[in-house]
Amino acid sequence: MPGLDPSALEVVPARHGKAVPLARGQTVKVINTHGTQVLDTWSFGRDDMREFMSMEHSRSFNSKIMLGVGDSYVSERRRPMLKVIEDTSPGIHDTLLCACNRYIYEEQGCREYHRNCADNLHEALSALGCTFPFTPGPLNLFMNIPVDPDHSIRRLPPASRAGDFVRLRAEMDLVVVFSACPQDMSPINGDAKTPRDAHYVVEG
Amino acid sequence: MPGLDPSALEVVPARHGKAVPLARGQTVKVINTHGTQVLDTWSFGRDDMREFMSMEHSRSFNSKIMLGVGDSYVSERRRPMLKVIEDTSPGIHDTLLCACNRYIYEEQGCREYHRNCADNLHEALSALGCTFPFTPGPLNLFMNIPVDPDHSIRRLPPASRAGDFVRLRAEMDLVVVFSACPQDMSPINGDAKTPRDAHYVVEG
Repeated sequence: MPGLDPSALEVVPARHGKAVPLARGQTVKVINTHGTQVLDTWSFGRDDMREFMSMEHSRSFNSKIMLGVGDSYVSERRRPMLKVIEDTSPGIHDTLLCACNRYIYEEQGCREYHRNCADNLHEALSALGCTFPFTPGPLNLFMNIPVDPDHSIRRLPPASRAGDFVRLRAEMDLVVVFSACPQDMSPINGDAKTPRDAHYVVEG
Repeated sequence: MPGLDPSALEVVPARHGKAVPLARGQTVKVINTHGTQVLDTWSFGRDDMREFMSMEHSRSFNSKIMLGVGDSYVSERRRPMLKVIEDTSPGIHDTLLCACNRYIYEEQGCREYHRNCADNLHEALSALGCTFPFTPGPLNLFMNIPVDPDHSIRRLPPASRAGDFVRLRAEMDLVVVFSACPQDMSPINGDAKTPRDAHYVVEG
């Protein structure tokens, strides 16, 4: 990836999650390395892990269902957590849909355990010695879910290209969790329905 | 209210919440008595109160952001909780926005405590001896939040008329909570910005 110091690149492995502590003022550059990967994203306050990034509050706070550069995702206490500083992708991200969980894969016919974003969240937090009592609605970076005038939604492949990135700034001390979504039964991770690695760099 | 047995009518007092146990198969008729009142609505499984009605899963399950007659609101375990059986209103309800909480009223300039839907939820549960560790995104019955093509939302008065009702059927044993939204600083409860009583009847 030209222009990046590869030694600073961290991976979110396909189908897995990663928890990333950020200090206030640091940014994280989230790279859609292959262009097709959705990253379910959550944030929690480091001073009080009960404070979580809320999509329903973020939609209310910004009076929009899709946030862009200059907008902030906020907690249920209405405090800005992550501010969008830069976005080289077409800016299509989803705030509407749940994280996939084991019940969804059972609904889709899976008889054996299927990795899923909800479990990835809790696994990733656990790796830092943290727990959280439920799965908040995620920010689905790069997920392409248009809402039609009849209020129906569609599940499309990401509109991003390989190497597109979003730069997010921590507005308070945070633990951010990314999950490289394991969904391989719908085209939300690309027409090949193949989850891929994504990468990130913490800056500042 | 013609045609209703007033003895069966229960009130959700303006600015307050009410928890209503429902057995599977029972319906609750939720009446917008004055036509202008939003009712934030939650459900919890009676067998396991940790199971809660999830707007992000309901949008995903139904592939739409506004549900109508025949659709079911589901839990995060993807189990139908409340099915929409009948709706005499124009069918405009919101699944996108958070319950108002004290932080929102502080943001809007309130210096003293303002009643709010989040506290109403927990107060109402507490009256039944129940607790829940957070405030799920609510179903906002009668709330009129159009989404524009540029992804922005607007906060409009309800489209319902006095006496309009929604009939919801419990698909499992539930505790349902209604909050007659105390919002009096935006027109979401009508241009008079005056929260009003609403009513309900449990049937079956």
